[in-house]
Amino acid sequence: MVFDYYASGAEDQWTLAENRNAFSRILFRPRILIDVSKIDMTTTVLGFKISMPIMIAPTAMQKMAHPEGEYATARAASAAGTIMTLSSWATSSVEEVASTGPGIRFFQLYVYKDRHVVAQLVRRAERAGFKAIALTVDTPRLGRREADIKNRFTLPPYLTLKNFEGLDLGKMDKSNDSGLASYVAGQIDRSLSWKDVKWLQTITKLPILVKGVLTAEDARLAVQAGAAGIIVSNHGARQLDYVPATILALEEVVKAAQGRVPVFLDGGVRRGTDVFKALALGASGVFFGRPVLYSLAAEGEAGVRKVLQMLREEFELTMALSGCRSLNEITRNHVVTDWDLPHPRPLPRL
Amino acid sequence: MVFDYYASGAEDQWTLAENRNAFSRILFRPRILIDVSKIDMTTTVLGFKISMPIMIAPTAMQKMAHPEGEYATARAASAAGTIMTLSSWATSSVEEVASTGPGIRFFQLYVYKDRHVVAQLVRRAERAGFKAIALTVDTPRLGRREADIKNRFTLPPYLTLKNFEGLDLGKMDKSNDSGLASYVAGQIDRSLSWKDVKWLQTITKLPILVKGVLTAEDARLAVQAGAAGIIVSNHGARQLDYVPATILALEEVVKAAQGRVPVFLDGGVRRGTDVFKALALGASGVFFGRPVLYSLAAEGEAGVRKVLQMLREEFELTMALSGCRSLNEITRNHVVTDWDLPHPRPLPRL
Amino acid sequence: MVFDYYASGAEDQWTLAENRNAFSRILFRPRILIDVSKIDMTTTVLGFKISMPIMIAPTAMQKMAHPEGEYATARAASAAGTIMTLSSWATSSVEEVASTGPGIRFFQLYVYKDRHVVAQLVRRAERAGFKAIALTVDTPRLGRREADIKNRFTLPPYLTLKNFEGLDLGKMDKSNDSGLASYVAGQIDRSLSWKDVKWLQTITKLPILVKGVLTAEDARLAVQAGAAGIIVSNHGARQLDYVPATILALEEVVKAAQGRVPVFLDGGVRRGTDVFKALALGASGVFFGRPVLYSLAAEGEAGVRKVLQMLREEFELTMALSGCRSLNEITRNHVVTDWDLPHPRPLPRL
Amino acid sequence: MVFDYYASGAEDQWTLAENRNAFSRILFRPRILIDVSKIDMTTTVLGFKISMPIMIAPTAMQKMAHPEGEYATARAASAAGTIMTLSSWATSSVEEVASTGPGIRFFQLYVYKDRHVVAQLVRRAERAGFKAIALTVDTPRLGRREADIKNRFTLPPYLTLKNFEGLDLGKMDKSNDSGLASYVAGQIDRSLSWKDVKWLQTITKLPILVKGVLTAEDARLAVQAGAAGIIVSNHGARQLDYVPATILALEEVVKAAQGRVPVFLDGGVRRGTDVFKALALGASGVFFGRPVLYSLAAEGEAGVRKVLQMLREEFELTMALSGCRSLNEITRNHVVTDWDLPHPRPLPRL
Ligand SMILES: Cc1cc2nc3c(=O)[nH]c(=O)nc-3n(C[C@H](O)[C@H](O)[C@H](O)COP(=O)(O)O)c2cc1C
Ligand SMILES: Cc1cc2nc3c(=O)[nH]c(=O)nc-3n(C[C@H](O)[C@H](O)[C@H](O)COP(=O)(O)O)c2cc1C
Ligand SMILES: Cc1cc2nc3c(=O)[nH]c(=O)nc-3n(C[C@H](O)[C@H](O)[C@H](O)COP(=O)(O)O)c2cc1C
Ligand SMILES: Cc1cc2nc3c(=O)[nH]c(=O)nc-3n(C[C@H](O)[C@H](O)[C@H](O)COP(=O)(O)O)c2cc1C
Repeated sequence: MVFDYYASGAEDQWTLAENRNAFSRILFRPRILIDVSKIDMTTTVLGFKISMPIMIAPTAMQKMAHPEGEYATARAASAAGTIMTLSSWATSSVEEVASTGPGIRFFQLYVYKDRHVVAQLVRRAERAGFKAIALTVDTPRLGRREADIKNRFTLPPYLTLKNFEGLDLGKMDKSNDSGLASYVAGQIDRSLSWKDVKWLQTITKLPILVKGVLTAEDARLAVQAGAAGIIVSNHGARQLDYVPATILALEEVVKAAQGRVPVFLDGGVRRGTDVFKALALGASGVFFGRPVLYSLAAEGEAGVRKVLQMLREEFELTMALSGCRSLNEITRNHVVTDWDLPHPRPLPRL
Repeated sequence: MVFDYYASGAEDQWTLAENRNAFSRILFRPRILIDVSKIDMTTTVLGFKISMPIMIAPTAMQKMAHPEGEYATARAASAAGTIMTLSSWATSSVEEVASTGPGIRFFQLYVYKDRHVVAQLVRRAERAGFKAIALTVDTPRLGRREADIKNRFTLPPYLTLKNFEGLDLGKMDKSNDSGLASYVAGQIDRSLSWKDVKWLQTITKLPILVKGVLTAEDARLAVQAGAAGIIVSNHGARQLDYVPATILALEEVVKAAQGRVPVFLDGGVRRGTDVFKALALGASGVFFGRPVLYSLAAEGEAGVRKVLQMLREEFELTMALSGCRSLNEITRNHVVTDWDLPHPRPLPRL
Repeated sequence: MVFDYYASGAEDQWTLAENRNAFSRILFRPRILIDVSKIDMTTTVLGFKISMPIMIAPTAMQKMAHPEGEYATARAASAAGTIMTLSSWATSSVEEVASTGPGIRFFQLYVYKDRHVVAQLVRRAERAGFKAIALTVDTPRLGRREADIKNRFTLPPYLTLKNFEGLDLGKMDKSNDSGLASYVAGQIDRSLSWKDVKWLQTITKLPILVKGVLTAEDARLAVQAGAAGIIVSNHGARQLDYVPATILALEEVVKAAQGRVPVFLDGGVRRGTDVFKALALGASGVFFGRPVLYSLAAEGEAGVRKVLQMLREEFELTMALSGCRSLNEITRNHVVTDWDLPHPRPLPRL
Repeated sequence: MVFDYYASGAEDQWTLAENRNAFSRILFRPRILIDVSKIDMTTTVLGFKISMPIMIAPTAMQKMAHPEGEYATARAASAAGTIMTLSSWATSSVEEVASTGPGIRFFQLYVYKDRHVVAQLVRRAERAGFKAIALTVDTPRLGRREADIKNRFTLPPYLTLKNFEGLDLGKMDKSNDSGLASYVAGQIDRSLSWKDVKWLQTITKLPILVKGVLTAEDARLAVQAGAAGIIVSNHGARQLDYVPATILALEEVVKAAQGRVPVFLDGGVRRGTDVFKALALGASGVFFGRPVLYSLAAEGEAGVRKVLQMLREEFELTMALSGCRSLNEITRNHVVTDWDLPHPRPLPRL
């Protein structure tokens, strides 16, 4: 049941498969005979220097995977010198995660109908030293995850959505549906709109990343609304099925952002080659979700460290074999896509 | 045998699979941060207000699925506030279906060689309160459904094509072929042509929907012939194999109709996302066939209610997650198709 | 072993599968509300009236399939009112086939190194009432049919290539390879060229069909060389693997022929829909090979009659459901192919 | 373990499969009625006449396959009248291979951090009569071959990288990774760049082939740097996964080379048809790797002779069936590719 919740996507899971498949349709144009004895993978995200452009996406309820849950993830991210994003629906509170030690952390925000809850939570995250808000905008209602519906999935009774513990919103009832879907229907604000992005800016100084953009139109609106960055995301294919793979939506968003804010991507990132492809198509960095949960389930903090290390090594190797020594040497010409049509060769036949 | 009759398509069943597959090649461009707390799915079809743009296609011989047959379907459609189309070859008569209570119903017409039969039937449907004629134009001969040929499929002897009971045309003989194919060869008028659409207009005031259009050319002719609407349909892939999926033929027909008559679609609609895609490509509503038969077989009227409810919920969710609050907010820009080529990016290579 | 010889294609058998698959990528644009009560499938090939545009391709050694071999095929073709092409390598002679009764027949010619053999054979075919020569031009060497190599395939000793019986060329030795490949290497003239087409015209008045054209260039040369017609063929995918499916090469050849000679097609025709597609793309008729062999093996003459009847019925049904009443009503607009690109719709995005 | 080392590719092995699959998307346009009684496959590579445009790629450690290892390969290549390329990492030294008898041989060079090692090795190869240096440029680090990592693959202790025997570099340690990857990380120079190509020219008069080019940009740089030829190679899909199949990268490189140096290809060549396709797309010849190892393992020298003979015969047959009598008759018009778009036919629909 937990595995189903972590692994599954919405409805036919077409986008779930496509998030991976689409990467394999983007090919490299590697350059040779470049001195790659030194590879620099460091980058700066919203002014924070990190060791590599690979960050941890917010995923809810990590204590279902391992008793250390979000603590383990936070420590592994710090050790790897990268950013962890904590979910609103974490089974550890912002304060608890902050107490694990230093580290650059973002806070993912779901906007509740009760705006006092939201305002209070944002202030707590700010005080706990979180550096940015990732505002999730693709979840006015929960996607139809059919395994969860069948399983009547709900948060196990011995766990709590810790950030909402004092607010009577920390427990999730069993229902005749996905318990999470019912919870969302009851608590989450379906009326969330661009004006709320403005409102958020009035209650916090933290930069806001809009998480869940898939079109150029919305990228432009995000810039206008004062977003500090955009995350191209389809929520790990868990919301609306048949949206494009994020790696295919990325370039449209990047062009629309016109370099005015950084654009990030999540969805299906599993290999160092995937990271390189996203950067070549214009991303400033990537986030990844499920592999963190799986490695957490397998080995706790050590597992998350390993998965971060593996991705780092693969990405470094990809850079070396492509002839890129630093992130800014990765260009659009290092990849070729379906939509880079070769000049059609006029047929000599007739 | 009954299952084969319901499920199968013509010959290689290529179009049968394609009717589904083609939907998965149409992707969403969902819009975010729009207040979707209220979703309005109501629409008007030929002047009749219905609760959602999802209607029931005519399928023959429903009493093979369940003793209540067409009665159950009619009641479930009424309860859901939508339209049922009754097949000419129903195992309940127009009068019987009318007697199940109020409801907006269309009557699907097969044109028999004997035009008196046709005229009489149309008048009975009109008198029984049916609101439109769906004239099926893709069946001058029955398609080669190889399972039915192998099964020597025929109407079970305890059932009757009720609309033709008094006319000695209500029974179907066993034959050394599909019994239905032989029946069609014997009774249905292969000479049916556009002038008969004119003739129909002389015998009834009911609006006529031309069911089975797949090309722009015929869409234009339908408008000229005074059709009140067009149904893009390949008869559930049961007539000519290797015709395109209806969702791929839709846009061509919509453009040719130039908004002068509404265009509907049936064929492979199984998900709320499919309904949304059809509307985004210009359909005014969709019909669906087989899922009604399957749910009827499983649970009678309750089953049909459930399948209607499920489709409604999925469609509402799709609207919410796409940022559309009413049907007229669904636009062509909310989907992207194979034939929306991205601007090819000139290759820098040579 | 016999089955392998009949069924297999060259090397990877890519073209063998593609000959079928390519048909499924050509779709119909059926027209409706046309009086199809009368369907006329008759046509004229090289001046000979036949009942349908479906003819029998030359396939060697039919007595391996059934004791009646070519006799049975010849009689079934006559009964169906269509043309049979007799292979050079038949296990019945031109005279024997002629003796089965009236019928329009073509003779397929392989050119031997010894031109006396060829001249004599052509004269015998002419005298036996054959109406045309189908000159096979794709076999200067035999294709690599790996099943035959593995099987050390050869003509069974109790059979003879009857047309060569008196010439000491009627038997085929066992060899450490495909016996047929060795036979071809020994006897068939690899130097065959366009000037030999001219030479053939000096020794016979029969019209010459060039069998095995796949390009526009060769179509033009065939017209110039005085061919009476062209057969687009890849020898049932038995010669060079990775040549295109014939249905995909057809249109290029048709355009190059500019209507100056009729163009025919063979390769993978199995359904009435295939026949229609070939005609819509410009063929004047089609030939088919393997289904004749299989039905011959199953039921002799009766089998061949059935397969001809089935194809006829399917083709007639396809015409009816497409709204075509005679062959000349079948147009290019009745099908749509991959290379009929829709007008790309400029993207509104950026 | 040995089999895994020979057979496997990097990471997901996408490019490994694609190296083969891509060939099957290139089709023939065979020409007919050309006298193909004489086929000449000879060609000249860097001034050396060989019997066919099919040569042996460098593959390391052949004694793992068969006790005779590189000796057997060298003798089989000589017997077939073609070129063998000896790997730097051979289990036989340049002198040993030279001692097997006459034959045209190239030497594949990996550049070690210690340039004295390199200089010495190049001089030894030159003295042993090798005719060219194939400088491998795609291996600053070893690709992630996951089977080798899992197997902790290393050179068996009873074997030595013979060219480095006296230099203390001939043995490979077991490690907690692929032993070969560790060896490469320790010894191979990651700083290798175009200026080293210049340096190589100062220490040897042998012509230099740059092995591992996949882009037009690098093809131009190779010409400028004085390379005598280019080998389009992705190292048998063993370095960076998701690079294009070499047959798809070929034409871009050929165009960029502008005929100033010959362009060769390796990667997935298994059939005579593959050789023809590479030549039609502009290659001057091809190399192949794995089939040599497999046939060596099966039957030693006799096996390698057979695989060379088979490829020769298939290529000759392909030439005959395409109507080409010598290599210079093979043209771009003899093949058709995905990117040779047919003129789109304007749709008549709207
Ligand atoms: C089990 C699970 C829980 C998630 N929980 C949240 C969440 O609480 N908030 C959120 O914004 N996204 C959530 N996501 C989406 C992730 O932030 C991210 O978009 C997605 O996992 C990226 O795709 P990937 O798993 O293929 O790497 C969740 C994803 C998964 C798989
Ligand atoms: C079992 C069955 C019976 C049908 N009977 C009729 C009929 O009597 N008249 C008609 O116009 N269409 C008939 N149809 C076609 C449907 O009206 C409709 O076009 C088709 O079912 C839509 O495709 P779907 O089943 O994939 O939703 C039938 C379809 C099925 C599956
Ligand atoms: C078993 C067999 C034998 C054949 N023998 C000949 C032959 O003797 N001469 C010839 O020109 N073509 C021969 N062909 C090719 C056919 O004439 C024809 O091109 C091919 O069978 C058409 O493809 P189909 O089998 O898919 O219908 C043969 C094909 C097969 C399958
Ligand atoms: C087992 C194996 C060992 C190889 N060793 C070397 C090598 O030592 N040096 C090198 O430049 N390429 C090496 N290659 C790559 C080959 O030279 C060549 O690029 C590749 O094998 C061609 O692809 P193919 O195996 O599909 O024919 C090796 C390849 C294989 C499969």
